[in-house]
Parts: sequence; C-alpha cells; structure tokens
Amino acid sequence: MPYRLLVIPGDGIGPEVVEAAMHVIRAAASRYGVEFEIKTGEAGDVALRKYGAAMPQDVLKLADAADVIFKGPIGESAYDVTSLIRMRYTLYANIRPVKNLPGVPAVKDIDCVFVRENVEDVYVGAEYKVGGVAIALKVITEQGTRRVARVARRYAEARRRKVTVVHKANVLRITDGFFRDVALEELKGLEVDQMYVDAAAMELVRNPARFDVVLTTNQYGDILTDLAAQVAGGIGLAPSGNIGDYKAMFEPVHGAAFDIAGRGVANPIATILSAALMFEWLGRRDAAEAIRRAVEKSLEAGIKTPDIGGRSSTIEVGKYIASIL
Amino acid sequence: MPYRLLVIPGDGIGPEVVEAAMHVIRAAASRYGVEFEIKTGEAGDVALRKYGAAMPQDVLKLADAADVIFKGPIGESAYDVTSLIRMRYTLYANIRPVKNLPGVPAVKDIDCVFVRENVEDVYVGAEYKVGGVAIALKVITEQGTRRVARVARRYAEARRRKVTVVHKANVLRITDGFFRDVALEELKGLEVDQMYVDAAAMELVRNPARFDVVLTTNQYGDILTDLAAQVAGGIGLAPSGNIGDYKAMFEPVHGAAFDIAGRGVANPIATILSAALMFEWLGRRDAAEAIRRAVEKSLEAGIKTPDIGGRSSTIEVGKYIASIL
Ligand SMILES: CC(C)[C@H](C(=O)O)[C@@H](O)C(=O)O
Ligand SMILES: CC(C)[C@H](C(=O)O)[C@@H](O)C(=O)O
Repeated sequence: MPYRLLVIPGDGIGPEVVEAAMHVIRAAASRYGVEFEIKTGEAGDVALRKYGAAMPQDVLKLADAADVIFKGPIGESAYDVTSLIRMRYTLYANIRPVKNLPGVPAVKDIDCVFVRENVEDVYVGAEYKVGGVAIALKVITEQGTRRVARVARRYAEARRRKVTVVHKANVLRITDGFFRDVALEELKGLEVDQMYVDAAAMELVRNPARFDVVLTTNQYGDILTDLAAQVAGGIGLAPSGNIGDYKAMFEPVHGAAFDIAGRGVANPIATILSAALMFEWLGRRDAAEAIRRAVEKSLEAGIKTPDIGGRSSTIEVGKYIASIL
Repeated sequence: MPYRLLVIPGDGIGPEVVEAAMHVIRAAASRYGVEFEIKTGEAGDVALRKYGAAMPQDVLKLADAADVIFKGPIGESAYDVTSLIRMRYTLYANIRPVKNLPGVPAVKDIDCVFVRENVEDVYVGAEYKVGGVAIALKVITEQGTRRVARVARRYAEARRRKVTVVHKANVLRITDGFFRDVALEELKGLEVDQMYVDAAAMELVRNPARFDVVLTTNQYGDILTDLAAQVAGGIGLAPSGNIGDYKAMFEPVHGAAFDIAGRGVANPIATILSAALMFEWLGRRDAAEAIRRAVEKSLEAGIKTPDIGGRSSTIEVGKYIASIL
C-alpha cells in the first residue's frame, strides 16, 4: 500500500523550496522502492485570500486522510495552518536536528537534536481579554510531558544517552517545575542535566557543542531552535519533523521569506533535509541517509544557493541532489 | 539629603563583585559629590539557610525605606528576592544596555538597549496545578504596556529614534497582540518595526547591529538579553537597571556562578556598569559617564579578569577602576 502523502507548498518561497524537494522525494522513492500516493493542497496566506480560509475544508479532508504531510513555510496565517495541523493530529514532538554542514560558515560547531513539545504551553490558544487585561494560559500536562520525554529518550538512546532539559522552573515553579519533574522521571538512567532557558540561549552561542539531545517546552523550543539553526550556519538549512503516534508533518524551520520569493534564490536544503526526516519516520533510514549524503555532496561540489556562497538556483540544487541519490 | 542605598551582596560570586563595585560607587560618590546613606542586607540562598527566608523581614523593611537598591546575583531563590523586589515596588522597566567593550572578543558588533517589561507576563506568579495539569497565567495589561513603552520611547528619543517591538503575536494573538498594539500606539512618531521573538533570537546572532532600542515582554526579554550579552562578549559584562516611578534596583544580568565563587576570578564589570546605570537614574550622568570611561580604560590597560583574557582579580579590577575615576 502506498503512503498517502499530502504536499502543502505554502507561501512565499514555499512553492519553490517544496518543488525542489519534490524532485528529491520522487527520486528517493523510486530509488529505494517507497510508494507514495501524492496529493497537493493549497493552504496559508494565498488560500486565505483565494478561498477565505487559510486551511480550506477540502485541504483539511486531504490532511485527515493522509499518512504524512510535507509542508512548505506559511506566512502570516501560520498559526491557522501549522499549529492547526500540529494540534488536530496531536503531533506532540517537534524534532529539530541542528548540525553544521560542509562549506557552510557557522558561528560554532554544533550537533544536537531538539525535541520540542509541540501541542501544549502557551500554544494551546486559550487567550482572553477583559477590558485592559489580556490573559493567556500556559498549559503543561503530565501526559503531554511524558510522551514527548519518551521521544527524547529514544533519540538519546540512539545517540550519546545525554539529554538537557530546558525550562524556567525557578520562576515558573508549578508549570515548568512539573515539566521538569515528569521529564526527569521519564529520562531515568540517562545522563540528564537541566538548564534555565535564558542560560540555554546564552550557552547555544558560548558553547553549543555541550548539547546533544535537548528537551524543552513548546515556546522555548520555538525560540531556541531558530537560534541554534543560526549558530549552525543559518535557518535555510534547518529541517523539522512534527511527530505524533499515527501521523507526522515535515517542514523547514524557516518562514515564508516573502522578500526573496519567486526569484529562485531560496535555499531548499532545510526542506530537502525535512524530506530525509520523513523517510526516517517511514522507517526508511536507507533513503534518509542517502538524501543526507547527497546534500553534503552537493555542498562539497559547490552546488548551492547564494545565501551560503553559491550561484545555483533553488531548483538546480534540488535537481542536482535528486540526480546523485 | 543623602540617598538611602540598600546593598544586597547576594549569593555565589555576589559578595565579591559587589565589593568591587562598592569601591567604584564610593569613589564616584565622593568625586562627584553624591551622598549616600548605605545599609547592607543579606538576602538569597544564604539568608534562606541562615534565617529561613530568602528575603528576611528586616531586609524587606530596609528595602521599603531605601531610595535605591544595589544587588548582586541571587542563587536558586532569585525569584523570592529579585522578582519580589521588582513586583513589590513595581519596577516595571528592566533596562539592559548591550554593547561591545574594548579588547573583549565578541561574536558580533552590537550596541542596543533592551527595555524589558518587568512585572507582568508569566512572571506574575499565578500558577495552579490540578491533577495532571499545570497552568500558569500570562498576563499583559494596557497600563503595564503603556508605561514600559514610554520608557522605550524616552531611550529611543535619546538615541536613534528607532524601536523594535518583539512579540509572538502570530501565535499569542490576544496577549502579545495587545502588547504590540498598545506599544505601537505609545511609540507613534518614531521609526518602529516588529519582530517575532524566534526571529529576533536568530537575528541577534545574524545581524545584531540592526537593533537599537528593543521593547519586549518579560520572559522574551529574559531570554534575549542573556543571548545579546553573550553576543557582545559575555554575560560578565552586562548591567541592568530595574526602574519604577519612585524606586529602582540595579544588578548584573548574570547569575551567582557558584562554581567560581570565592576564588576572586569573577568579572565585576557587569556590576560596576550597573552602578553607572544607578548614577544615571539618580540624575548624575557625569558620574555615570566617568564610570563607563574608567571601565573602558581598565580594559584597554589590560586590568581585567581571566574570563576575558586578563590576570587581575575581581577586587583589583574594582579598585583600579575606582582609582582612575
Ligand atoms: C509560525 C509559527 C506558528 C511556528 C511556531 O511558533 O511554532 C514557527 O515559528 C515554528 O517554529 O514552527
Ligand atoms: C533569576 C531570575 C528570576 C531572573 C529573571 O528571570 O528575570 C534573571 O534570569 C534575570 O534575567 O534577571
């Protein structure tokens, strides 16, 4: 049975980087014998303008039916698309590996995996305004913390058995304290340390090599993974996977970058590496590794976009990587 | 009438860096004719162990009576001391200038002032736990946003008339959206731009020179100012002032650093530059500028602690800076 794959090109540079990545996905699928039944859905700012909904009903139906979603960046309506997908399908772990790549100037050496809780915290959308006071709920549950901590555990077991739990339990004693306590329970037997989120931000610039697996709450993860991606050489290279128990969505960490959209200069590597994460999640580590190796080879061969010192276009990079799989 | 100054040495390296800074404060006071009536209070982890309260009643009384508080870092009980002081006296603006210093290796050039809202957001201490669910309130008020935005406005008017408002209103539409809307209203007439907090973290590493005055909410400010300090060359150099309408507290941005406490190697510059901010708040820009110049001269003369490549002790740095005021 083929996997039902929903592709959402998204806004801004989305269609370009997704097109480039689709060359890689199709090539890897045929080379490694993975079958997909591919549908495409329009969602995001463009859909909002065209159909009055950032996530139109028919795209939602496609998403409901899909085994896996592959998505480009979304513009201003990201919450209505990205967060909606994360919440609706309980994609509770956001996996964000951060690693230097050959020939890409980095701030520092870094090789870690962020496991960001993905459906709780201030992202639950419980916000109220009464007169001059606005309130949002930050929600941390035991169940939600346990399941994401188990994902961190799995990654740590496949790596150096080391996890850093990032929180702010000195201020948020009950919520972040709960997250920390439950996480520490689930991580027993591994080498675990803790860091306050402000110190972690500093440390990601000072000495990022100290991190291996980082487990944190939703909003801290949002902030720290953008930062870490920049430390590794830029957000154009950072992939991510939103993982649930039955479904998953893969997308680049970066945004829609409207300022460079349509010019063929957007870096497709974050999106292509997200495809590698997708094959990994489908249990096809061979295809995933092949994509990663091809990405490294393309960088070594200088087939890269201008943001990292190359002269190739978005689609040229995608086609080249597809061709050497 | 002398200013009533309460000094809280704090935990870890606190007593050392505060002692060094007190040499500078006394020298500047006598050189520039500023009179202080100085009291000292023990608060923090040490006080908690000794007296069973991180902020003992008699220290609280001294704080109530003081015009200004000068504080070292606090350890694990920081929330009970630092946040308590901020809240009790409504020190609603946390001013954190970040700037490269001579001879201090930096990640990038940076020269900006963070104006961090200091008494709202998830720091209000409204946290609850029911069974397996923990909830904290994130609170943003109109009044709280207006007053801190006015402080940002004053700083911008004294600098390049440029403010970046940092929030996450694409997700937190009601709370962060309210903060943004009220802030934009108060900043009318200035050059104002906005940035999502995740993008701001990235941008502080990519191109920090683009920031001048940065206005943000409490927790984003906590995270971003540690990060910015590291970009400028390290957290040992970052001063701060917690400003209210009638009272203020000055402290280094860094923590108690228990691992290096008592060895005379702690960098006192963050604390000494916090003293400069104190004189500025007291209306004594002459003394403030003199301290800043003396700090730069000491760095140029190589009188500095090991963390930034020197061989001087904490107290030697303090005494040297005091001597050349
Ligand atoms: C667009 C936004 C909703 C999203 C988030 O904050 O999670 C994005 O920044 C991300 O990190 O995937
Ligand atoms: C110690 C802690 C309460 C404090 C904060 O989070 O505000 C500190 O990190 C700071 O930035 O002053």
